[in-house]
Amino acid sequence: MYGTRLRRAAEAAGAGGLDGLLITPGPDLQYLLGSRADSFERLTCLVVPVTGTPAVVLPRLELAGLKPSAASELGLTVHDWVDGVDPYALVASLLPTPARTGISDAMPALHALPLAAACGAPQVLANTVLRELRMRKDPAELEALRRAGAAIDRVHARMGEWLRPGRTEARVGADIRAAIVAEGHTAAEFVIVGSGPHGADPHHEVSERVIESGDVVVVDIGGPVAPGYFSDSTRTYCLGEPPTDVAAQYAVLQRAQQAGVEAVRPGTTAERVDAACRDVLAAAGLAEAFVHRTGHGIGLSVHEEPYIVGGNAIELAEGMAFSIEPGIYFPGHWGARIEDIVLVTADGCEPVNRRPHELTQLPG
Amino acid sequence: MYGTRLRRAAEAAGAGGLDGLLITPGPDLQYLLGSRADSFERLTCLVVPVTGTPAVVLPRLELAGLKPSAASELGLTVHDWVDGVDPYALVASLLPTPARTGISDAMPALHALPLAAACGAPQVLANTVLRELRMRKDPAELEALRRAGAAIDRVHARMGEWLRPGRTEARVGADIRAAIVAEGHTAAEFVIVGSGPHGADPHHEVSERVIESGDVVVVDIGGPVAPGYFSDSTRTYCLGEPPTDVAAQYAVLQRAQQAGVEAVRPGTTAERVDAACRDVLAAAGLAEAFVHRTGHGIGLSVHEEPYIVGGNAIELAEGMAFSIEPGIYFPGHWGARIEDIVLVTADGCEPVNRRPHELTQLPG
Repeated sequence: MYGTRLRRAAEAAGAGGLDGLLITPGPDLQYLLGSRADSFERLTCLVVPVTGTPAVVLPRLELAGLKPSAASELGLTVHDWVDGVDPYALVASLLPTPARTGISDAMPALHALPLAAACGAPQVLANTVLRELRMRKDPAELEALRRAGAAIDRVHARMGEWLRPGRTEARVGADIRAAIVAEGHTAAEFVIVGSGPHGADPHHEVSERVIESGDVVVVDIGGPVAPGYFSDSTRTYCLGEPPTDVAAQYAVLQRAQQAGVEAVRPGTTAERVDAACRDVLAAAGLAEAFVHRTGHGIGLSVHEEPYIVGGNAIELAEGMAFSIEPGIYFPGHWGARIEDIVLVTADGCEPVNRRPHELTQLPG
Repeated sequence: MYGTRLRRAAEAAGAGGLDGLLITPGPDLQYLLGSRADSFERLTCLVVPVTGTPAVVLPRLELAGLKPSAASELGLTVHDWVDGVDPYALVASLLPTPARTGISDAMPALHALPLAAACGAPQVLANTVLRELRMRKDPAELEALRRAGAAIDRVHARMGEWLRPGRTEARVGADIRAAIVAEGHTAAEFVIVGSGPHGADPHHEVSERVIESGDVVVVDIGGPVAPGYFSDSTRTYCLGEPPTDVAAQYAVLQRAQQAGVEAVRPGTTAERVDAACRDVLAAAGLAEAFVHRTGHGIGLSVHEEPYIVGGNAIELAEGMAFSIEPGIYFPGHWGARIEDIVLVTADGCEPVNRRPHELTQLPG
């Protein structure tokens, strides 16, 4: 599998007019080599030349970290280096001179600038050629995303165990973190518990606020399942009976989210799906309350292409995976969001999250 | 304090021939603005023009994340942007055209390449001008490093509670992680428990290996204390009486570490300190067993300049902080390392770690 991905990446790089790809630790390295190596100030870099065979440059100290990857199974050449050696010159020596390279999104400037100098040519983002590969998930990747979706659904199903008046967001969040791992994730990557007015901040995490009876609470949670694919699902809860206006506005949001899901099919564009959600909210006078894009791609990164946002004319295709997550936010008062991950199928899409979309009432 | 740092950074950028600095989340942003903002695919960037006042560009969604920083106290202009806007053009509009910029080490290529295009001029690492500021710690920073050193010393002092034959490295590591937090860190950043043959891998973390009586065990641990300064200290333990040859080789390592500490003073160079350690080991025939550099700077990053390594002729100066951590490694058998953080004083250095340097014997 990794051999195929590397070969296709090299072909795409060649077709894109590049001499090779330089991939430092991050999601691209996981995708191409199955390596979850971490990055420090010492350079670790997968070199994928358009002509020739891929190689790994890494500090001798980190050699052991390469074992849980496809490097040896694929017979890649490993060039280890010791403190005092110039690893950038070592990378450049594995490519033509000068070498026009594509570098991974996650590569820090600390490495990107000296690699540009050593290779003697401008860089582009490797993503310009890798995106087509990484956006179209293969069957094993889709299955991992389904497992991730089922795992986070099990956490939402248990929300009543923890989300109660009198507890702080932070305590509820700690319980949720433990449950994310208990239900099959390798870690809890993010936990948002936005109660009452905090629900109006889409990127709130948790706080010492004590949750009150009557609060509307946004719970947006996720993490990776082996071998590294992420879950990400939001549901909104109400601790007691919602006021009539909250219920009415939430009902519009639910229709907006459904409209987004129904708009997904191969051949339509990301911006049309965004508009499908936005139009429902706008028709109800809630355009201003929806302050972010409709969604983001997901896979080995929580956020990746395709972004479901106005101005993104990318055509959706079978095998893509992304969130549909409209929200409505009333600063100082409350907010709500509904988020499912969907997989694009031959004629529509398959949501991997199956929890009810209604404003879920818990004891207040 | 942050106002002074920003002013000095702008002056240094001007002296370095730059038009401004572009700083994305990471240690440089903590240093200049006291912001621990996290980075996602949406650009957050502190713009420090050589002429004019600094400004922050960030997603409207992340506005709340700016509160725990000096941005409002300093009256910085905040340019928030929403999905669909080009944040790179927004940054460029705050600088002359074209603008030669210094970018933070941690900036991902995802942002660095479009910023270079928007600014219309080549980039350099901001560190080329910030290093002189960040390397010379001020009194508050030195005090934070002392607190960090004392906190990690308290964890080493309790090692006998956890490090016993019959337990796995992973279980010992979990106990150490909890103690790192309990003793005053805000998190456990890294925990190495390298028992027996695992001690010969300098970057081993923990494993399911069951620790045995007679094992030599390398324990290298650290984390941040508020407001973000790191501890990092290694001690080596022996579960029972060490064999004569182990004791003899460890004694050489201890002399090497001491020689390194004694070589530190303003005006000497990083490479001379490295050589001071290395020479002691070489004289005892152990040159080949010491496979890494002698140390790294420390502060808001675990690893930063100055690096104590052969070929680094940088002159040490009062206020610098770095590790002195020679090790000896015998693959397949055992390893040992001794690491203290030292602060350069007017006439030598002050170690912030005070635990005994001997091979510490615990019940076997």
